[in-house]
Amino acid sequence: MLDVASPHAFDEAVQLEALASGRFRGRITPAYDNMVGPFGGTIAAVMLNAVLSHPQRQGDPVALTVNFAAPIKNAAFEVTACVARTNRSNQHWTIQLEQEGAVAITATVLLATRRASWSATEAQPPQAPPADRLQAFSAQGMPEWVSSYDLRFVQGDLTLDGVERADSVSTLWVRDASPRLLDFLSLTAISDVFFPRVMTRRQVWVPAGTVTMSLYFHADAAALAQQGSAHLLATARASRYHDMYFDQTAQLWGADKSLLAVMHQMVYYRP
Amino acid sequence: MLDVASPHAFDEAVQLEALASGRFRGRITPAYDNMVGPFGGTIAAVMLNAVLSHPQRQGDPVALTVNFAAPIKNAAFEVTACVARTNRSNQHWTIQLEQEGAVAITATVLLATRRASWSATEAQPPQAPPADRLQAFSAQGMPEWVSSYDLRFVQGDLTLDGVERADSVSTLWVRDASPRLLDFLSLTAISDVFFPRVMTRRQVWVPAGTVTMSLYFHADAAALAQQGSAHLLATARASRYHDMYFDQTAQLWGADKSLLAVMHQMVYYRP
Repeated sequence: MLDVASPHAFDEAVQLEALASGRFRGRITPAYDNMVGPFGGTIAAVMLNAVLSHPQRQGDPVALTVNFAAPIKNAAFEVTACVARTNRSNQHWTIQLEQEGAVAITATVLLATRRASWSATEAQPPQAPPADRLQAFSAQGMPEWVSSYDLRFVQGDLTLDGVERADSVSTLWVRDASPRLLDFLSLTAISDVFFPRVMTRRQVWVPAGTVTMSLYFHADAAALAQQGSAHLLATARASRYHDMYFDQTAQLWGADKSLLAVMHQMVYYRP
Repeated sequence: MLDVASPHAFDEAVQLEALASGRFRGRITPAYDNMVGPFGGTIAAVMLNAVLSHPQRQGDPVALTVNFAAPIKNAAFEVTACVARTNRSNQHWTIQLEQEGAVAITATVLLATRRASWSATEAQPPQAPPADRLQAFSAQGMPEWVSSYDLRFVQGDLTLDGVERADSVSTLWVRDASPRLLDFLSLTAISDVFFPRVMTRRQVWVPAGTVTMSLYFHADAAALAQQGSAHLLATARASRYHDMYFDQTAQLWGADKSLLAVMHQMVYYRP
């Protein structure tokens, strides 16, 4: 049952206070702390939230790219969102997050108004038993943000047993630990819950951090609302790890087997 | 044999004239004309070229995102590249292209200095006979830019026979029609040679255009130079087409079966 009386921890984490013309102040709450600074998924959601909260907004998100130029501290920051171009059916945005007078995060967002068209899904959802038949991942010893999610691994969890795996494929059911209705912001954060593929592959702790991520939304607001607070089926894998950078690609499927979004990122890892 | 006496058509297309501090003037040549304006791959290469030509540049490209906010005309434009953040081993850039006083293209670039690290490739190259056993794709009736490339389809070419295919997978060998040594700029352009997946899938002409693309480089400058002017093995597919937007994901493999780059894009198509 959803407790609608008090705000959800995620909403508290990504909320923004409007300042003058397209500027916002925010501070991600400790519930989403990562090893250094806040969980990248919440940073991405904050960047999107600046656009969605902007009075000039036209349409819903179709694509979001976030560049993690520097770690941010667990402290206040300012986000500035600017319209780069407004067209008949879509709108392009550029966004910057500054902390202590320096740019730490840059982003671009594409909003659009969609109309019905010929549609099809080519990708196949991964095989998975129902979420309630799987054990919840233990957040013990993990950064704080991990406990903000209910993660149920089908394949490719993190054991850190040091035995290298044949591949880095992870498939898991995921939702907010405290149930919350899915929307663009929470889906954005959820798209980044995958542990760095280099750790899943090697099963050792490797300092790593996303340097850029792009999220493409296939679901519109109504399709997201239909998911309610159910678990999503998420799957990710890497293509190549080479000299300090690897790519990671992911799909986020609804419980109804609709492909809600695809996510790609490039990740730095320490040699 | 390479003719090193005269500049290659691609270099002419993406060249930039330096103006004041981080501003450049360019004009993509008619050899790369698309249906409306120039071929998107050359636009992406121009955005990257502004960073690579900038005196503050540190490192080589690891990631590039280009947002096509508006069609550009076959005319001069200005590109402005700004350093968002310089770190010890990487550097983040934001870039804008303006034409007739309005922003038409935005981009972000990540440069980095790599060091040797644990490395591995998980993705598998597609099966393909040698390029010289395959017929070159006929550019007849196609936009001008298509003749600037030598395309040899293994699978999923464009016949426009109106018979819908089971999927949109295309695999092809590709190089510049007039041989040119591979570098970051030409690889960027080549990553966008795939016809829109909705056309490959449906085999009918559908007005479509990339709205955002992200390219992740696995190869460094030396690895690209090693490819010489050989064909690359390129493969692409869509995950989902939904209400005017589909995503497209691609891999670019060297003739030596090394994964040079992966590319993702979101594409608008007319309902």
